[in-house]
Amino acid sequence: MSAAVFLAEGTEEMEFAIAYDVLVRGGINVTSVYVPASSAPPSPESGVVRASRGVRIAPDTTLEEIVRKDLLDSFDAYVVPGGVGGAATISGNEIVLDALRRAHGSGKVVGAICAGSLAVLQAGIGRGEALTSHPSVADQLRGDYDYREDAVVVAEKLVTSRGPGTSFAFALAIVELLKGADVRAQVAAPMMLLHL
Amino acid sequence: MSAAVFLAEGTEEMEFAIAYDVLVRGGINVTSVYVPASSAPPSPESGVVRASRGVRIAPDTTLEEIVRKDLLDSFDAYVVPGGVGGAATISGNEIVLDALRRAHGSGKVVGAICAGSLAVLQAGIGRGEALTSHPSVADQLRGDYDYREDAVVVAEKLVTSRGPGTSFAFALAIVELLKGADVRAQVAAPMMLLHL
Repeated sequence: MSAAVFLAEGTEEMEFAIAYDVLVRGGINVTSVYVPASSAPPSPESGVVRASRGVRIAPDTTLEEIVRKDLLDSFDAYVVPGGVGGAATISGNEIVLDALRRAHGSGKVVGAICAGSLAVLQAGIGRGEALTSHPSVADQLRGDYDYREDAVVVAEKLVTSRGPGTSFAFALAIVELLKGADVRAQVAAPMMLLHL
Repeated sequence: MSAAVFLAEGTEEMEFAIAYDVLVRGGINVTSVYVPASSAPPSPESGVVRASRGVRIAPDTTLEEIVRKDLLDSFDAYVVPGGVGGAATISGNEIVLDALRRAHGSGKVVGAICAGSLAVLQAGIGRGEALTSHPSVADQLRGDYDYREDAVVVAEKLVTSRGPGTSFAFALAIVELLKGADVRAQVAAPMMLLHL
């Protein structure tokens, strides 16, 4: 099983790192995929992305590179973290949105957390289904979705969540969809989670 | 207020990113400080550190650089994340251990989470006081400390915690010590924490 976790300037580093790490703990091959802002070059100039609170992260690959290698549709799951700036870039990228449409259409897992749920809206997938997001962007989503305030909402293979503090539960829900409840439990135990 | 968060090959990326991000949200100037393994060059060769599950993070500075600039004792708080390999490197570095001793001795905040609590042990600070860690290293600590199994243990300015899943509570406890309970509450609210 494999997952692409998108990463852009301004991505929320906790949501990114928790999704990446927990999926790796679940035995999933995780690739972080850099998405450039609309006018930016295809790779980050310094080799690293500046996340929302200043953590600098080197992506595993770039959107341009996986398109060139024809790998964009090769993942079993696609994850969109939040962070206002990062989510705006990712949810404004038509190549990403097309990939999310194809993934959702073929029954693959699409996960979005916090402001990342705007990518689900922009892709137009799962309309009318249950969904959540960070409260700050809820008004943009209520008209098109059955908006919920649960920490994690799973609508078949569409997984959405609320913010940094729900990231563990979000990532574990994706692990469960890809690898089953036993693997989820094995991954959760040593992380010393306060509450799920 | 300022904080140094140590970073080494094998540091747990969730514990690192949550500490860094939550402290920044609390208005604290955070600097990540690279600690090389004993035989490694002073800067990471590729410019980035490979964390425990493969996230690649660029440190803000290196231990060598802040020593050279005489800034090692300039922080108000010092944070040691876990991750077995990273914690071994950090808790085996005498320059770091000396800095932790001076910080603790002058009433500054020292935070350690997960296997990072081994740095507290190696520095020999807070002996006999209340402390916690990841369960996997508890046996190394029980003899010298009043070992607890709480998510976060605060013994005056020594803050310890258990693992990735307790990282938000750990970081918020440090925010409260440095900036007060009101700032802690303001930082916590928008993160959508499931439970603290």
